[in-house]
Amino acid sequence: MERTPAPSAPGLRDRPVYDRDSLLEVAVVVFNERGYDRTGMEELARRLGLSKSSIYHHVSGKEELLDLAVSRALDALFAVLDEDDDPQATATSRLERIVRGSVAVLAAELPYVTLLLRIHGNSEVELRALERRRAFDHRVAELVARAVEEGGVRGDVEPHVASRLLFGIVNSLVEWYRPGGGLSAAALADAVATVLFEGLRQRPAP
Amino acid sequence: MERTPAPSAPGLRDRPVYDRDSLLEVAVVVFNERGYDRTGMEELARRLGLSKSSIYHHVSGKEELLDLAVSRALDALFAVLDEDDDPQATATSRLERIVRGSVAVLAAELPYVTLLLRIHGNSEVELRALERRRAFDHRVAELVARAVEEGGVRGDVEPHVASRLLFGIVNSLVEWYRPGGGLSAAALADAVATVLFEGLRQRPAP
Repeated sequence: MERTPAPSAPGLRDRPVYDRDSLLEVAVVVFNERGYDRTGMEELARRLGLSKSSIYHHVSGKEELLDLAVSRALDALFAVLDEDDDPQATATSRLERIVRGSVAVLAAELPYVTLLLRIHGNSEVELRALERRRAFDHRVAELVARAVEEGGVRGDVEPHVASRLLFGIVNSLVEWYRPGGGLSAAALADAVATVLFEGLRQRPAP
Repeated sequence: MERTPAPSAPGLRDRPVYDRDSLLEVAVVVFNERGYDRTGMEELARRLGLSKSSIYHHVSGKEELLDLAVSRALDALFAVLDEDDDPQATATSRLERIVRGSVAVLAAELPYVTLLLRIHGNSEVELRALERRRAFDHRVAELVARAVEEGGVRGDVEPHVASRLLFGIVNSLVEWYRPGGGLSAAALADAVATVLFEGLRQRPAP
């Protein structure tokens, strides 16, 4: 029943042309809207304006799309850690740069990070992604502990609680931040770093 | 096919006895585990060890259970606002008490608040709950703006962004905080208020 897709000649049949990245971009929007578990290949094909067989031309199925999407988010987040692995810098300044870098990744890769933060470990792909998320969180938590030891971060909040709160504030951005809505990614990163490191309380000028 | 439930004589038939509150408590756990939309009355009945008709003895259906659950969370959160409506207090001190009070409600009513934070407006009940959540957020955001005006909260972060970050840090607690896990609700409230108002950075002793 399905016509053969013609990815190289879209004008002839009015079919949209996708490469794997642009197909992924649409799929991630649909997963975030409907929930990954509730999205079937039928729905994806409808939203893409493709036949299911055309999708299978690019990927083996929706699990591969999920894998590509969450890997993209995780690779970008780990790049922030690795860029910032300067042994000369204090743990506190590294932590602050990592917070800003994570906010920048979140703003630039918002749909991919949103999807990453919503998975629950229902498949091999999800379990692997959760494992990488834990590894990321663990490296940041270690940095918080080192920042407390060096005296740059307050010690009256337990380091593991402080790092949970740090992730809480960063991850919650996916709930409300929308690029292009009047708050730049740089201003957002400043706001998060200011509240997290300096606190909301106004202090008298020194 | 279903036997008549015997709520007043459990020993005779080994059926669990529920009142509406204890039935709600189990239902909310199931909703949080499986997702509200994916939980059917069959599954609820199985988990409760009741027949479906026994559930209908207490409530009209799963939507009423959702309504009871999210109303319980919202009532507790609004009680924090209303308790703290002292016109003599500064907006900043009221804001700090409201943050602590919200954390206390979250810890005490964790499954109910978790369910509240996960709904997306797919029904009348959900839309009404989202409306009340927005009204709550709006009152807190107004208080943040007043706290900035009175000079108690820093003005270099826009008040609406500051209030988003405030809710981000409080709401994210449902992702990891578990009562009885070694961190008391009071210690949690202290940690959140300290990080949010004073910031992570260690300051020299005055």
